[in-house]
Amino acid sequence: MKKFTRKRSKKVGLPPGALVHVGEKREEKVRITIIDYDKAQFQEKEAETVEECFPFKDKPTVTWINVDGVHQPEIVKQLGDCFGMHPLVLEDILNTDQRPKMEDFGNYIYIVLKMLYYDEKSNEMIIEQISLVLGSNFVISFQEKMGDVFNPIRERIKSDKGRVRKMGADYLAYALTDAIVDNYFTILEKIGEKVEFLEEELVAKPKPETLQAIHNLKRELIFLRKSVWPLREVISGLERGESSLIDASTKLYLRDVYDHTIQVIDTVETLRDMVSGMLDIYLSSISNKMNEVMKVLTIIATIFIPLTFIAGIYGMNFAFMPELGLPWSYPLILLVMVGVGILMLIYFRRKKWI
Amino acid sequence: MKKFTRKRSKKVGLPPGALVHVGEKREEKVRITIIDYDKAQFQEKEAETVEECFPFKDKPTVTWINVDGVHQPEIVKQLGDCFGMHPLVLEDILNTDQRPKMEDFGNYIYIVLKMLYYDEKSNEMIIEQISLVLGSNFVISFQEKMGDVFNPIRERIKSDKGRVRKMGADYLAYALTDAIVDNYFTILEKIGEKVEFLEEELVAKPKPETLQAIHNLKRELIFLRKSVWPLREVISGLERGESSLIDASTKLYLRDVYDHTIQVIDTVETLRDMVSGMLDIYLSSISNKMNEVMKVLTIIATIFIPLTFIAGIYGMNFAFMPELGLPWSYPLILLVMVGVGILMLIYFRRKKWI
Amino acid sequence: MKKFTRKRSKKVGLPPGALVHVGEKREEKVRITIIDYDKAQFQEKEAETVEECFPFKDKPTVTWINVDGVHQPEIVKQLGDCFGMHPLVLEDILNTDQRPKMEDFGNYIYIVLKMLYYDEKSNEMIIEQISLVLGSNFVISFQEKMGDVFNPIRERIKSDKGRVRKMGADYLAYALTDAIVDNYFTILEKIGEKVEFLEEELVAKPKPETLQAIHNLKRELIFLRKSVWPLREVISGLERGESSLIDASTKLYLRDVYDHTIQVIDTVETLRDMVSGMLDIYLSSISNKMNEVMKVLTIIATIFIPLTFIAGIYGMNFAFMPELGLPWSYPLILLVMVGVGILMLIYFRRKKWI
Amino acid sequence: MKKFTRKRSKKVGLPPGALVHVGEKREEKVRITIIDYDKAQFQEKEAETVEECFPFKDKPTVTWINVDGVHQPEIVKQLGDCFGMHPLVLEDILNTDQRPKMEDFGNYIYIVLKMLYYDEKSNEMIIEQISLVLGSNFVISFQEKMGDVFNPIRERIKSDKGRVRKMGADYLAYALTDAIVDNYFTILEKIGEKVEFLEEELVAKPKPETLQAIHNLKRELIFLRKSVWPLREVISGLERGESSLIDASTKLYLRDVYDHTIQVIDTVETLRDMVSGMLDIYLSSISNKMNEVMKVLTIIATIFIPLTFIAGIYGMNFAFMPELGLPWSYPLILLVMVGVGILMLIYFRRKKWI
Amino acid sequence: MKKFTRKRSKKVGLPPGALVHVGEKREEKVRITIIDYDKAQFQEKEAETVEECFPFKDKPTVTWINVDGVHQPEIVKQLGDCFGMHPLVLEDILNTDQRPKMEDFGNYIYIVLKMLYYDEKSNEMIIEQISLVLGSNFVISFQEKMGDVFNPIRERIKSDKGRVRKMGADYLAYALTDAIVDNYFTILEKIGEKVEFLEEELVAKPKPETLQAIHNLKRELIFLRKSVWPLREVISGLERGESSLIDASTKLYLRDVYDHTIQVIDTVETLRDMVSGMLDIYLSSISNKMNEVMKVLTIIATIFIPLTFIAGIYGMNFAFMPELGLPWSYPLILLVMVGVGILMLIYFRRKKWI
Repeated sequence: MKKFTRKRSKKVGLPPGALVHVGEKREEKVRITIIDYDKAQFQEKEAETVEECFPFKDKPTVTWINVDGVHQPEIVKQLGDCFGMHPLVLEDILNTDQRPKMEDFGNYIYIVLKMLYYDEKSNEMIIEQISLVLGSNFVISFQEKMGDVFNPIRERIKSDKGRVRKMGADYLAYALTDAIVDNYFTILEKIGEKVEFLEEELVAKPKPETLQAIHNLKRELIFLRKSVWPLREVISGLERGESSLIDASTKLYLRDVYDHTIQVIDTVETLRDMVSGMLDIYLSSISNKMNEVMKVLTIIATIFIPLTFIAGIYGMNFAFMPELGLPWSYPLILLVMVGVGILMLIYFRRKKWI
Repeated sequence: MKKFTRKRSKKVGLPPGALVHVGEKREEKVRITIIDYDKAQFQEKEAETVEECFPFKDKPTVTWINVDGVHQPEIVKQLGDCFGMHPLVLEDILNTDQRPKMEDFGNYIYIVLKMLYYDEKSNEMIIEQISLVLGSNFVISFQEKMGDVFNPIRERIKSDKGRVRKMGADYLAYALTDAIVDNYFTILEKIGEKVEFLEEELVAKPKPETLQAIHNLKRELIFLRKSVWPLREVISGLERGESSLIDASTKLYLRDVYDHTIQVIDTVETLRDMVSGMLDIYLSSISNKMNEVMKVLTIIATIFIPLTFIAGIYGMNFAFMPELGLPWSYPLILLVMVGVGILMLIYFRRKKWI
Repeated sequence: MKKFTRKRSKKVGLPPGALVHVGEKREEKVRITIIDYDKAQFQEKEAETVEECFPFKDKPTVTWINVDGVHQPEIVKQLGDCFGMHPLVLEDILNTDQRPKMEDFGNYIYIVLKMLYYDEKSNEMIIEQISLVLGSNFVISFQEKMGDVFNPIRERIKSDKGRVRKMGADYLAYALTDAIVDNYFTILEKIGEKVEFLEEELVAKPKPETLQAIHNLKRELIFLRKSVWPLREVISGLERGESSLIDASTKLYLRDVYDHTIQVIDTVETLRDMVSGMLDIYLSSISNKMNEVMKVLTIIATIFIPLTFIAGIYGMNFAFMPELGLPWSYPLILLVMVGVGILMLIYFRRKKWI
Repeated sequence: MKKFTRKRSKKVGLPPGALVHVGEKREEKVRITIIDYDKAQFQEKEAETVEECFPFKDKPTVTWINVDGVHQPEIVKQLGDCFGMHPLVLEDILNTDQRPKMEDFGNYIYIVLKMLYYDEKSNEMIIEQISLVLGSNFVISFQEKMGDVFNPIRERIKSDKGRVRKMGADYLAYALTDAIVDNYFTILEKIGEKVEFLEEELVAKPKPETLQAIHNLKRELIFLRKSVWPLREVISGLERGESSLIDASTKLYLRDVYDHTIQVIDTVETLRDMVSGMLDIYLSSISNKMNEVMKVLTIIATIFIPLTFIAGIYGMNFAFMPELGLPWSYPLILLVMVGVGILMLIYFRRKKWI
Repeated sequence: MKKFTRKRSKKVGLPPGALVHVGEKREEKVRITIIDYDKAQFQEKEAETVEECFPFKDKPTVTWINVDGVHQPEIVKQLGDCFGMHPLVLEDILNTDQRPKMEDFGNYIYIVLKMLYYDEKSNEMIIEQISLVLGSNFVISFQEKMGDVFNPIRERIKSDKGRVRKMGADYLAYALTDAIVDNYFTILEKIGEKVEFLEEELVAKPKPETLQAIHNLKRELIFLRKSVWPLREVISGLERGESSLIDASTKLYLRDVYDHTIQVIDTVETLRDMVSGMLDIYLSSISNKMNEVMKVLTIIATIFIPLTFIAGIYGMNFAFMPELGLPWSYPLILLVMVGVGILMLIYFRRKKWI
């Protein structure tokens, strides 16, 4: 989340459909994994070249092609050409600054999602764009870099757990979406913990760093919100859409993901409300502290300034100050001073300052 | 309300429909109560095993199965399988972090509601999820733990008060929903009393604890709001839905609950407005107090600092200070000091500081 | 407006349709007045018992039964049973904590409205619930206590002024609604005057009491808003509804009331905007005042603290302080002091503090 | 804009359709001007009595009757009766506290608009209500007092410039509406200039009067907004309405006015955003100034208070203070004082206070 | 962005369709460039007179007429008359204070867009209005002054890169719109960089200038928003409209621009959220700084004021002050002073002030 906009400007002036990778520069090799299955069989392999994917296009089994890395436009282009994708789709896959969206092209559906996770080292939220292309018998998923959020699904397919092997490509696309949305709950719990930690710190002893932490939290929530709100439309678009690619039985599951999305949105909004409440608390506690500082200053100054004045008077060097010569005037003046001090203290007590 | 998100993350990676209890861990036995009635007869028993519920499925009488505790997935699963519920419904029953919702599965309707009450000891608001499954001749209710909010309904059925015995399972589901919504008014009254108490405290003598109390109130209202807003859709969904499970005569009653829900929402919003107004008052009163402290300091300092300076001048040890030798200069200087003090006081009076 | 929620909790657990009065306890007798009229004749009487109302049910003339006081459930019940009202309607009439609403029951329409007026003594806004039941040839109005807002209509019927005698019960219901909405303008003018008074006070001399007054105003507007917003739907429901009870010619008048309602809402929103602006002004003026206090303190302290230091130096008792013995050093030091003071004043003038 | 609500309360209790002038009391005579034209001819005259207008009702030419002043209900009534207006329309014409609206009565359309201009003397925004009644061959316009905003249209008709002479009464009504909306741009420019002036003042030297000016601006924008928002509906109602009174060719022009209205609304909202930003700036600049004042005080006090204490020590009159007798102790102490002062200054410099 | 409203008032009173240039006065010659192409051929020329454009009206090839400068109404009028544009369109082209909009006139579509760029010298955002008129075989574009944002498209047409030469005038209009929207991303990146720069400055060392910079940023975002929001409707109007001028294949591209527009809006809103968060940070950091200043003052004053008082006591000149004569009382008093100082320091340490 270091840069909040990706350098999209390098695309300015290019014709639409121009394939330019927008995002952090990467060096590692793009990894392509192919999983092919139906009720009866399962096959998994890592493709050395893009061409290895092509035969799967016309196989009746469900094929899941996972591409880790979109920084090599030519790989995306080859895949896109083979599976008949529109140039604008290919452009969007490479342009990792997309908003979550769903586009139905008739014989395939293009879905953009945002994957969020925490970088353990820098404790920063990372946003990654995931593109899904759902055809009648295949799903192609594009990730920005290698991730492990899809591993449980891979496991489930391999070990034939749950429904996934019995159902079509649409269910696979659902399962991938579900994995991403489920992951949001992990992020929300992490942010929720931060919120609770900060709330306790706020009450115990607010520091200027607390403010910075609140601000960072707020910023993370702004980004989370930006990723999650459009998701609602995406999934309701899939659920209510009329595409023949999505089976009625899968729509029930999509309704479930939709519920989860609403819940994520709800929680994000609740967290936002709580975080803005924290800012108010912080500001009030600064005011309270300043008030306390002021009171200490005022009490000390108001007691001693008049006393110092009295001492000052009898420090004057006038020749004719008759009280200076009297033996009881020194103790009397001391008594007067104590009296003034006590009066002041009573006044402050009455004001409830001490 | 201690934890604002329940640990949902343990579900990440599991296939949809996986039955995992999300919520506080509980140890006590799950209690199942069966109430079976029609116009003519009434029967109530506590089931030792889940299997005792199964015969009621096909009886023409209205059956209400109440399950206290959802921390034993296998019990929920057995019930669900017998009464033909979808795996996703069973998952949602166990996952107590749901948003209120209503889903129509044709031959049964699944309703999630949130029950709120105050824990007398900790003075904290507790949120409990209640799931209702309404079939043609049965209602199954799932509570997180034993509660007494449904007792009056149990009494009404037993003693044949009101309409409940004369009507079907849909009316029973309405009565349970109504009991939950009515309970919100109790919560709102409690919060309303807190608001009034705090408002008086704010005017009388605001303390840093007042701020904390305002903040807690705000938080409770955020949670209340989160529980109540979706309720609106739930009940309007039941009322306007086309399900054959809900009779036209019951819809009139649902409209009544709908009105109550709107009223609850209205009151929550009003309370939110009032609580945010209180924060402004609090901040202004801190500012006012600091202003008062500053004034006292300024008055004392501004009067005595010049006087101390005058005293300081005549405390200097210069050899040639002719006025020191004059007999009337000491009383004169004292008069000058009194004069300066009085001028200052007049100035402050004119500024309306004293 | 003392209590912002009425004790509705005593209803919790009762079956729907249970007749319990919610609201302040009252002792006075319930007064029932019957006005019966058509183009040709007019009759007005005070009913001793509820039974006196029953014959009017089937008379072809328009009958207006006004009930002052809803704290005796049995009276409401008898009337309701005779005129065929649904138990939920009777419950809502007694439950004076309703939101304004309109319900069409086919052969009668039930309308809940909120009447607002100022209690002259406590200078507080009072909210009263008014229920109207409009049948084909009768209007029954329920007030919480005796009021005089309907008197002009009574007069108009008696003296055959305006259209009211020439038209049906729907026009009468319109006239009563119109009287209530017109009354809101009186309330708004009163609040408007308060706003103007406070704005002047804010500019002239803001006091902590001003803050309290702004806060009260804000609260009154919150309540006003809560009463007025739902009115919009109520009246548009009457105007656009398809009820045969409301004549097309009356709908033109309802459109007029609708316009007034929108105008009331508009004004309430404008007043809310103005009142929140006042809070900002108040806070800024406190800040301004504190700034001024600080400046006085700073000017006095900054001038005299260095001077006092100089005086302190020459008050030291060192044996070898050659300047003490010189004849011109005392006046020189005095000059230096004056010089330092003047420099300080020039500095403050340059800073635009004085 | 002195009074923000006009005394509407005098209408309370009157039957609907009662003709009472609401607004400032006026004494001057009501002026009625008649302009009658078609492609071929043009006639303009000032009517002495209302009756002079009646013959124009049935003339095929377009007639524009402009009434300056609505404080004489009988004139409005006579006109209304002759041209067949509904009593509620007449009531609304007199009641100058209306919200902009459009009502289609079939054979005529009633339009209420708000005219805004600046009073040059008091520099205050004046709101005037303008009512238009559009019939098949006439437009009657009612102004609260004489104005000159319609003069250019009068000129265009007289000199046959533009399309107005070639088109019907609907085009004339459009032209009048257009003139009023165009006038809003003048108001907006004036407010825009004020905003720019205040922004510069804010940066240069904010004063308490600036706050008052911001507040006034805010208030003007609240009123402007209240006048302009409903206009949107009015004009879109005219444009999209199905009235046979408005020709398809005129609708194109109405779409143009609609665009202008949206633009006015846009600008009002932008100005509101800018003005609330200014308040933040003002508050921050007060805080900044107080901060600066505090710093000066702190620097002076923190330097001289310790020094004065040192001087105070050697001003004590103890008999045995050996250092008092040493010849080099006075210059040494002076050096120590200078040293302490310099250390303090270095500390402040490090803190970036000076 | 110096003036936020352009002097539109000079148009007040003129008939609709009057051609008056609204905007900055310009002197340079209006430049007209004609590009004419189809799949086979390409022709580009600069027109000396408007008349040179007329023959292209009926050529079957696609013609793009680009007009740099709209300050000469007669040129716009001649072009408009030749290509059959409505007078209101010509008026809007000249009136550069339009809101982005799209109007379908059947045989041509009129589109208003806002072009934004940064003036490198003044570092200010400049808004320029661009009008497009799309006919069946021509696009006429009007710019306020010469710009280079369309150059890449010119290049693409000339060198036959991309699809543009193979498609019709609608695709050209799309390409121009796309160029403008793409340019917004450049602006957003610039603002994003400013935001990041300011955030760092805020944390490092906030200055009063930072506030001004935040305010300017806020203002730029207000203007950006005003330009971008209506764009959404414009493009969705083109995409969903039923105009025969826009081909189905082009609509796919328009959906792409629509996505970009939504993304621009999203980013503007995110930036707005971030900028308002910055203001809170700024205000808190001022408060924090003042708190720190106050603490230093309080610590110094509270330590030395009592000590100075003690010194003052023994500076009094009473004849009978027995302790003055004792040899150990001076060191004792010094010890007492050190003790008091240390106690104070411990107190402050306990309060966590130092």
